[in-house]
Amino acid sequence: MTDLRQQALDYHALPTPGKISVSLTTAAETSQDLSLAYSPGVAEPCREIANNPDDVYKYTGKGNTVAVITNGTAVLGLGNIGPMASKPVMEGKSLLFKRFANIDSFDIEVKHKTVEEFVNTVANIADSFGGINLEDIKAPECFAIEKALIERCKIPVFHDDQHGTAIVTAAGMMNALDIQGKDIKQANIVCLGAGAAAIACMELLIKCGAQREKIYMLDTKGVVHTRRNDLNEYKKLFANNTDKRTLDDAIEGADVFVGVSGPDLLSQKQVKAMADKPIIFACSNPDPEIKPELALAARDDLIMATGRSDYPNQVNNVLCFPFIFRGALDVRARTINDAMKIAAVHAIRTLAKEPVPAEVLKASCEKDLSFGKDYIIPKPMDPRLCSAVAKAVAQAAVDSGVAALDMPENYMA
Amino acid sequence: MTDLRQQALDYHALPTPGKISVSLTTAAETSQDLSLAYSPGVAEPCREIANNPDDVYKYTGKGNTVAVITNGTAVLGLGNIGPMASKPVMEGKSLLFKRFANIDSFDIEVKHKTVEEFVNTVANIADSFGGINLEDIKAPECFAIEKALIERCKIPVFHDDQHGTAIVTAAGMMNALDIQGKDIKQANIVCLGAGAAAIACMELLIKCGAQREKIYMLDTKGVVHTRRNDLNEYKKLFANNTDKRTLDDAIEGADVFVGVSGPDLLSQKQVKAMADKPIIFACSNPDPEIKPELALAARDDLIMATGRSDYPNQVNNVLCFPFIFRGALDVRARTINDAMKIAAVHAIRTLAKEPVPAEVLKASCEKDLSFGKDYIIPKPMDPRLCSAVAKAVAQAAVDSGVAALDMPENYMA
Repeated sequence: MTDLRQQALDYHALPTPGKISVSLTTAAETSQDLSLAYSPGVAEPCREIANNPDDVYKYTGKGNTVAVITNGTAVLGLGNIGPMASKPVMEGKSLLFKRFANIDSFDIEVKHKTVEEFVNTVANIADSFGGINLEDIKAPECFAIEKALIERCKIPVFHDDQHGTAIVTAAGMMNALDIQGKDIKQANIVCLGAGAAAIACMELLIKCGAQREKIYMLDTKGVVHTRRNDLNEYKKLFANNTDKRTLDDAIEGADVFVGVSGPDLLSQKQVKAMADKPIIFACSNPDPEIKPELALAARDDLIMATGRSDYPNQVNNVLCFPFIFRGALDVRARTINDAMKIAAVHAIRTLAKEPVPAEVLKASCEKDLSFGKDYIIPKPMDPRLCSAVAKAVAQAAVDSGVAALDMPENYMA
Repeated sequence: MTDLRQQALDYHALPTPGKISVSLTTAAETSQDLSLAYSPGVAEPCREIANNPDDVYKYTGKGNTVAVITNGTAVLGLGNIGPMASKPVMEGKSLLFKRFANIDSFDIEVKHKTVEEFVNTVANIADSFGGINLEDIKAPECFAIEKALIERCKIPVFHDDQHGTAIVTAAGMMNALDIQGKDIKQANIVCLGAGAAAIACMELLIKCGAQREKIYMLDTKGVVHTRRNDLNEYKKLFANNTDKRTLDDAIEGADVFVGVSGPDLLSQKQVKAMADKPIIFACSNPDPEIKPELALAARDDLIMATGRSDYPNQVNNVLCFPFIFRGALDVRARTINDAMKIAAVHAIRTLAKEPVPAEVLKASCEKDLSFGKDYIIPKPMDPRLCSAVAKAVAQAAVDSGVAALDMPENYMA
């Protein structure tokens, strides 16, 4: 563990501090080059854009740029560590955008006093970018922030902790339900956690067919129910008219458990109390709500997913966010709507059902992967994800009328 | 001219839109790499920074990052074309930062209604960067904006249109005065233009020895004098207690003309009216206040500089801004103070007096360059500028007590 710690620190400090830098994509050697890149030549694209604002996509990097923006209030498992201390995570996110989808991304850490101030700040700089990935902003503020920015910005604004998590969870869950022979409309679902990711996951599962009244959401005070008067407006949408009060009550006969809470909160006894062929997504990271070996020791008819790379079925946002932005940018979508999110869900789950080529096995350090209990979602290193997800998302954007461009010919072929 | 136009547009559109992109500086191939770059390894540098905020310079790119920030209100010779249309210029500035000083830079275009809103927006995101280069913001708002941001930000904030221009102008001017055998303290100076660059140039010349009462500044209404009641607070500082009213009045017997105004505003007759051995900096770009061939036809005892690369003595901000930031970042200066600006002036003017090596001649496409009337400031492509200017600036920052670090050993050796 100390070794991993030092390795991680060295990785960030060497060869230069941080993980991303700027490169030039045009020649900048001679004074002739520079007279095109800057004065006097640069006046020409400026004039074009002044006459036709859309030309900013033709002559600048805007259309391939995504800003990763945070206030540092809910960083990984670290909590509210503030904007500065969150910077390595944000630079990491930018690294993933580049690595997986060739999107130019940099990070902006915002300090602010009120939600309104954060929103104003981001809205004022938004036109600089092709898209905004909101990151690690705590609930419930994140909901109002995202809503306001979507309204005010002409570019896609996407809070990955909500929707990226929800999309990957829904993709894995739909496949797990298929394998277990369960209908999402009939499934009793327990959601341990009531933060941004939990609420987004449940909302998206509902859009995929889950019934709101069959969802039991729990926060630190127990089941979210209709007789509680301490619920914020977002939890209220999940207030269940039920007598169940505790996780013990809710887990009895449940088909699905989704954990986005904390380590070791689900017991073997509770796993045993679930319905036949249950599904457990224990996504608290790095320490899940129950360790897979414990859950599988309790019963062997379950499907288990976690947020960890060292167990099967890793629910990892990187399966989605680089590619949903890739698709959105490539058809210049003005937003990322439900149709695009659901298209991403289906693209991810469909890819898991396809035979896995040898090079994907190699990239994923796996000997064999075939659709089933231990392989319900693709591996993060699967290079087919980009084309599959971006294509589905771009097509959904075009079909739902939020794209400024048509589908490019032979897109991602 | 049409060819240059198309060449400039193609340069910006191809091979991909824009001029800068993001690169990774660390390995990001395997899942092991990614577990260090992102979850779970990234938590380690986050924890370090949370415990010791200065560690953000150790584990992130902050310390080598400069944001180029504008509101698009005074872009090149194009005027108030707005933030979007200014983006090619800002990306060009980022390109120059990378090309000349290996600084990672990206651009942010801010839309806003009031000066206060602009300041709040930039101050809220400032901690993301190691420095802020304000660009193409119109006067007089730029003065209040820069002042407020310097107060509120812990990092260097530098309005290049003011201070970059002033530093390069002062460097060239001091050398021109030497060559003409004039004392700056005795020089009568005419400044045509009363915008951001004009005011900054005159303030810096005063810090270099010029006498305020010997400066005649002119705006569109003529000489700025003490009996005018239409002057903003910045012009007021240059209100001269004089009977001179027009450029004709002011130019009579002047030793120095500095033009930061518009094309063809200085006549041959006016050039002839200047004192013996005059100095003309006609910096309006691309078309100077008087064409060098006209000025030199009027009299041959003058020294002439312009903003153009196709005449001798180009006053070009790129001689300064990449390197003043390089020096400031390398000793982690919290501001760019007068001592650092004056150190830059002297480093630039001293370099012009040094013999020019063959490789510099080659890079500058020149056959011969030696200190004199036609070579008062270094050429933009002179690779010695980085070490000379950055070193002087860094040392001045350390000596004046605004640097968090000591001079690095063998810095720029």
